[in-house]
Amino acid sequence: MAKAAFDASDTPTLWTHEPHSHLEFQPGDEVGDIKANATPGFKGSKSDAPDLQDERNERFAELQEMLYARSRSGDTRKILLVLQGMDTAGKGGIVKHVVGAGNPQGIRYASFGKPTDEEQAHHYLWRIRNALPPAGHLGVFDRSHYEDVLIVRVRDLVPPEVWGERYDEINAFEKELVDDGTTIVKVAMFVSLDEQKERLAKRLKRPDKYWKYNPGDIDERELWPKYQQAYQAVLDKTSTEYAPWHVIPCDRKWYSRLAVTELLIEALEGLDLSWPPADFDIKAEKKRLDSV
Amino acid sequence: MAKAAFDASDTPTLWTHEPHSHLEFQPGDEVGDIKANATPGFKGSKSDAPDLQDERNERFAELQEMLYARSRSGDTRKILLVLQGMDTAGKGGIVKHVVGAGNPQGIRYASFGKPTDEEQAHHYLWRIRNALPPAGHLGVFDRSHYEDVLIVRVRDLVPPEVWGERYDEINAFEKELVDDGTTIVKVAMFVSLDEQKERLAKRLKRPDKYWKYNPGDIDERELWPKYQQAYQAVLDKTSTEYAPWHVIPCDRKWYSRLAVTELLIEALEGLDLSWPPADFDIKAEKKRLDSV
Repeated sequence: MAKAAFDASDTPTLWTHEPHSHLEFQPGDEVGDIKANATPGFKGSKSDAPDLQDERNERFAELQEMLYARSRSGDTRKILLVLQGMDTAGKGGIVKHVVGAGNPQGIRYASFGKPTDEEQAHHYLWRIRNALPPAGHLGVFDRSHYEDVLIVRVRDLVPPEVWGERYDEINAFEKELVDDGTTIVKVAMFVSLDEQKERLAKRLKRPDKYWKYNPGDIDERELWPKYQQAYQAVLDKTSTEYAPWHVIPCDRKWYSRLAVTELLIEALEGLDLSWPPADFDIKAEKKRLDSV
Repeated sequence: MAKAAFDASDTPTLWTHEPHSHLEFQPGDEVGDIKANATPGFKGSKSDAPDLQDERNERFAELQEMLYARSRSGDTRKILLVLQGMDTAGKGGIVKHVVGAGNPQGIRYASFGKPTDEEQAHHYLWRIRNALPPAGHLGVFDRSHYEDVLIVRVRDLVPPEVWGERYDEINAFEKELVDDGTTIVKVAMFVSLDEQKERLAKRLKRPDKYWKYNPGDIDERELWPKYQQAYQAVLDKTSTEYAPWHVIPCDRKWYSRLAVTELLIEALEGLDLSWPPADFDIKAEKKRLDSV
């Protein structure tokens, strides 16, 4: 059996504090200072990870089902997990190993690559709005509206005065979602250039990984200094009280998965969920059932 | 460790034949003869189920990822799982415990309840088409276009000459999907009236199950003889060579989950998948990576 992640008083035992307190971006934090191989706040070791991940996946799945159940009785709250990060940071692994522990019934996954012609013909938030999770759901954005101030900025796809306006627009958009009952969990995933090189090399070596490799990844890699600036601007300008960014060191996959799991659990626990009460007369229904 | 589900020659060891051969609807089969507590073709027992389910979930997940990977290189094939069944038959359990073993990245789940006003204003296949899985995906329909010849027929929501046309329309629609590279896995889930009563009683007893209870379920239960006729017509008229129905006895949840898992694995194995070849020059990319 796994060690308990939290003791009876709900204090994390393998975490020194609530994980988000280690991971939330703070004004003044520098992207250049991020240690991608760190494991902030985690007292355990890699060998604790598999059992702990299983155990916390169960907790996550239970809460996710409760959120979904409540939507049947009119609770309109939902969660939106926003995953951003350079290639190989492990977004796909979070979807598979963390989100994958949940029930597909209540999960809405969307990935945002190069916009299609139709998407391009609309405002950049159009495709984002179309993919928002409905009541009771966990929405997962694999890349997101932040691409419109990341790759778009780095590659000069629109003029600076256009992308420059977007930070405020994004904050206003997210405020609107929060006011509508969405808890936004924003996760910026950082992998070191050395670790990225190893992961790309593995994709070039293993036939079961070729499909994850894209020659464009190397072009992006060469642009890392410009991306670093663009990420800094994102964190500085769009880490709000209502939708803060979390900075996840991702050189150790086991750590980043545990960390994102805890962020999701914290978000769900923050909703103070309970099973919805019956919206029918239990006694009368029992009687009806007995008779048929 | 679980007993192997298939030996080295890929023959099922706990199944007497490929599961679909026991489960595929045959002309002349009568809905009234279905034994919902049977476990056709399965030689093992309930105690074999947990380990076997875990093991086969892994096989399913591996194949599902391969299907998704191939779509990145232009393979446009996809799978569509259609789940139909009376309340409490266990559709939700299939989604959670079978489909849930896959990677959310390649899964498109859609449930079809009472049509919205907008859906009602369109042809009944409009909302179905909107929810079809794209290339490389596993689409899951929790209820489907078959509602339009089941509840719609039983409750006289449209005149007989309207629903009467739909069987042929549905066959033509499904032929179109198959021609477009979709493998359709149609699953009709049957639970006995006794077992249904127990499951409904549990939903009325346990506060964590209230949300699954709907007073309308009892009305539907009372209409079982009419539903039986409607299901018979569906099976008789829409079990085609290109999209056959499978009849799943569902009184034993462990059996129905194992059975649907095997149907999905068979469908995926039938696509003869392999990891897609590199669509880039491996040597050149290795050299590029070395230099950055």
